[in-house]
Amino acid sequence: MRTQVAIIGAGPAGLLLGQLLSRAGIDNVILEKRSLDYVLSRIRAGVLEQGTVEMLHEAGVAKRLAQEGLVHDGFALAFRGTLHRIDLKQLSDKTVTIYGQTEVTRDLVEARQALSRPTIYETDDLALHGIDTDSPYVSFRANGQRHELRCDFIAGCDGSHGISRHSVPTGASRSYERTYPFSWLGLLVDRPPASHELVYANHDRGFALCSMRSTQRSRYYIQVPTEDRVENWSDDKFFDELRRRLPADVADGVTTGPSLEKSVAPLRSFVAEPMRFGRLFLAGDAAHIVPPTGAKGLNLAVSDVHYLFDALHRHYRDNSDAGLATYSARALARVWKAVRFSWWMTGLLHHFPDRDGFDWRIQQAEFDYLAHSRAASTALAENYAGLPY
Amino acid sequence: MRTQVAIIGAGPAGLLLGQLLSRAGIDNVILEKRSLDYVLSRIRAGVLEQGTVEMLHEAGVAKRLAQEGLVHDGFALAFRGTLHRIDLKQLSDKTVTIYGQTEVTRDLVEARQALSRPTIYETDDLALHGIDTDSPYVSFRANGQRHELRCDFIAGCDGSHGISRHSVPTGASRSYERTYPFSWLGLLVDRPPASHELVYANHDRGFALCSMRSTQRSRYYIQVPTEDRVENWSDDKFFDELRRRLPADVADGVTTGPSLEKSVAPLRSFVAEPMRFGRLFLAGDAAHIVPPTGAKGLNLAVSDVHYLFDALHRHYRDNSDAGLATYSARALARVWKAVRFSWWMTGLLHHFPDRDGFDWRIQQAEFDYLAHSRAASTALAENYAGLPY
Repeated sequence: MRTQVAIIGAGPAGLLLGQLLSRAGIDNVILEKRSLDYVLSRIRAGVLEQGTVEMLHEAGVAKRLAQEGLVHDGFALAFRGTLHRIDLKQLSDKTVTIYGQTEVTRDLVEARQALSRPTIYETDDLALHGIDTDSPYVSFRANGQRHELRCDFIAGCDGSHGISRHSVPTGASRSYERTYPFSWLGLLVDRPPASHELVYANHDRGFALCSMRSTQRSRYYIQVPTEDRVENWSDDKFFDELRRRLPADVADGVTTGPSLEKSVAPLRSFVAEPMRFGRLFLAGDAAHIVPPTGAKGLNLAVSDVHYLFDALHRHYRDNSDAGLATYSARALARVWKAVRFSWWMTGLLHHFPDRDGFDWRIQQAEFDYLAHSRAASTALAENYAGLPY
Repeated sequence: MRTQVAIIGAGPAGLLLGQLLSRAGIDNVILEKRSLDYVLSRIRAGVLEQGTVEMLHEAGVAKRLAQEGLVHDGFALAFRGTLHRIDLKQLSDKTVTIYGQTEVTRDLVEARQALSRPTIYETDDLALHGIDTDSPYVSFRANGQRHELRCDFIAGCDGSHGISRHSVPTGASRSYERTYPFSWLGLLVDRPPASHELVYANHDRGFALCSMRSTQRSRYYIQVPTEDRVENWSDDKFFDELRRRLPADVADGVTTGPSLEKSVAPLRSFVAEPMRFGRLFLAGDAAHIVPPTGAKGLNLAVSDVHYLFDALHRHYRDNSDAGLATYSARALARVWKAVRFSWWMTGLLHHFPDRDGFDWRIQQAEFDYLAHSRAASTALAENYAGLPY
C-alpha cells in the first residue's frame, strides 16, 4: 500500500485533515485502532469557536452544523451567586456554536464515505517506521493480516494515548505538564438546558457548569475530588449538588431526568514540543491536552489541522516546504496561548483544596475586576471565542 | 490634648489625610515614631497613578510635582530580549508621573508646616485606647513627657510594622499573605536613566527593572535570592548583572556611576481585613502590602486616604456616617484588585526558582498574548495607570 499522507487516528483531527487533503487532491489513508461505532459513540466537547466553524465550512462538512448548531453570542460566569455575562459578540465580534464533537465526527465520517476515501478501523500492532527518513511507513494488522502503508508524511492524530507521540525518540521531545487536584463529573440528560447560554460557576463547594448539546439535551458538570467515582453519584445526588453550586435563578432552571451518560474525567494540561519530528507531524491531543474549562480541546485540534493542511498543501501544490518547516512553531504559538487561557480559566473557577485564603481572595478580585472592566472581559471573550489563526 | 482625628504615622498616607482634613477645617494631629529627617530620607516608590496626581492637586500640594514630575505615556516589558511597549495613554487614556515618594512626603511636610498643623515626631510608647468606644484616645511619650490625645477617630497610617493594625483585637481581623521566593536589590545613581520610560524585564537570570526618579537620577532593580545581602554586590557587579538581563539596546543605555543607595527588599503580598475596627481606620501599608512590581504601594495608600477623607468629611460636614460604615468595603474592593494585579505582574516577570518548565512556558505565552492582544494590553495599562476610585 502507498499513499501521500498516512493519518493515524479517525477522530475529528484526523478526519478533518483527511477531508481537506482529499478535496485538494492529496491522497491519504486513515488508520484507526478502534471501531467506527466506538469512535461515533464517544461523548466529548460541544463548543465550537467561530474559526472552527469556518474550517468545517471550508472542508464542506458544515451543512448539518449550519442547520442544527446553536449560535451563542455569550455565556455567563457566576461567582458565589453573582452572575456576570460575557457578551462574546459585542466584545470580540465573534460567536461560538454549540454542536457536539460526536456530531462533527459523524459529519466527517459521512463526508469521507461520500468521497470513498479509505479509513481502516480496528487496526492492531500499529507502528511507525523511518519517520526521520524520506521514506516513512506504517505497519499494522487489520482483519488478521499484516500491512505496510508507505507514504510521504505521517500525521499523528491519535490522541494522548496513541502511538504517534510515543514514536518520537526520547530526547527529541520535551513535555510540559500540570495536573489539577480535582476531576469533572459530567452528566448528559435529554432535558432542556437550565439556561439558554452556558453558565460557569465558582462556588465554595466547587465548580459547576451548565452546558448543552441542543435545545433538548443538557450537559452538566460538577467538580469532584480526583479519586471520586461515578458509582458514588446517583442522578439525584448529582442534581442536588449541581443546584447548590448555582445562582438561584439558574438552579431553578435545571430540569432533572435520567442520565444518558455519566463519567469522571481528570483535568490536565500537557504540551509536547516540537510538534514535528522528521516526517511525523502531531496534531490535536497527540501533542497537547487542555483542561476542558475553556472548551479548547477540539478547537485546538482544528487549528493544528489548519496549519498542517496548509503546510502539506503548499508542499504538493507549490513544491514549497516552508509550511512544513514552520508548522510546529506556528501551531505551538497558538497552542500555548490556549493552554494559558485554559489554565487561567481553570484557576479562576475551581475550588483548590490545596490553596489558602489569599488565593481565594485573588479569585474573587479577578472576578470583580472582570465584572467591572471591559478590557478584561474582552480579553476573556477573545480567548473563549478563539484567537486568530 | 484633644483633636478630631488622631493620625498615627507621618508618611504620605498620614500627611495627605492630614492635609485634606486641615483644608476642610477638620482638626487633626499627626503622631510619628521617627524623626522628620528619617522620614524625609526614606527611599521609596516613584511612579504615581493619574488618580494620585489628581489627589495631590486636590490637596494643594502639587505645585512642585507639576513642575518636576515626569509624565510618562507608557512603559516597556521585555521578555528574553523582546520588547513590548504598553502605551498607557493610548490604551487607557491615562498617564503615570515619575516623582519620588520622598518628594511627595517633602511637599506634604512643607504644606503642613505652612498651615501650622501639629506633627509630633519621635514619639515613644504609643498606644491606642478605647477604639471600640465613642471616646478613643492615644497615649504616647514625647520629649520625655507622657501625653494623652483624645479624639473622635484614629487613622492608622503607620505602616506594616506600626501599632495601629496590631491594636485590633485578635479575632476581629483576618489576614491574607503571600511571600515570594526572591527579593529586589535596588540601586540609586545620579546618572540619566537607560531609557526615557520604565523597562520591566523577565530574563532567565531573573527580573530586572530600569526606573528613575528624574532625568538625571536612575533607580535600578534586580531580582536576587531572598537571603542575599547588599554586601555581596559591588556597584560594578550590580551593573554587570543588570545589563545581562536587559535587551541589548536598553543595556547599552545604562550609565554607571557610584551608588547613592543600595538595599535589598523582600517581596510580599499582605491584606488585613476589615480596614476598620470601631473608631480606628487603617490606611496604606498599615492594612496591606504589595510587591513593588506594579508600583501600587503608594498609590493604594492615596486611594485609601481618598475614601477615608470622604468618609470623615461626610461625618463632620453632613452628619452622615454612611462613608465611615462603608469605608472598609470600598477601600478593600480597590485594594484587592491592585493586590491581584501586583501578584499577577510579579508572576509574569520573575524567575521562580520553585517553578517548573510549564510555568515558564505559561509566562512566555502570557507575554506573547499581551504583545498581540490590544484587550490584554489594555487590561494591563488600565491597572498600571490606576483603576478608577
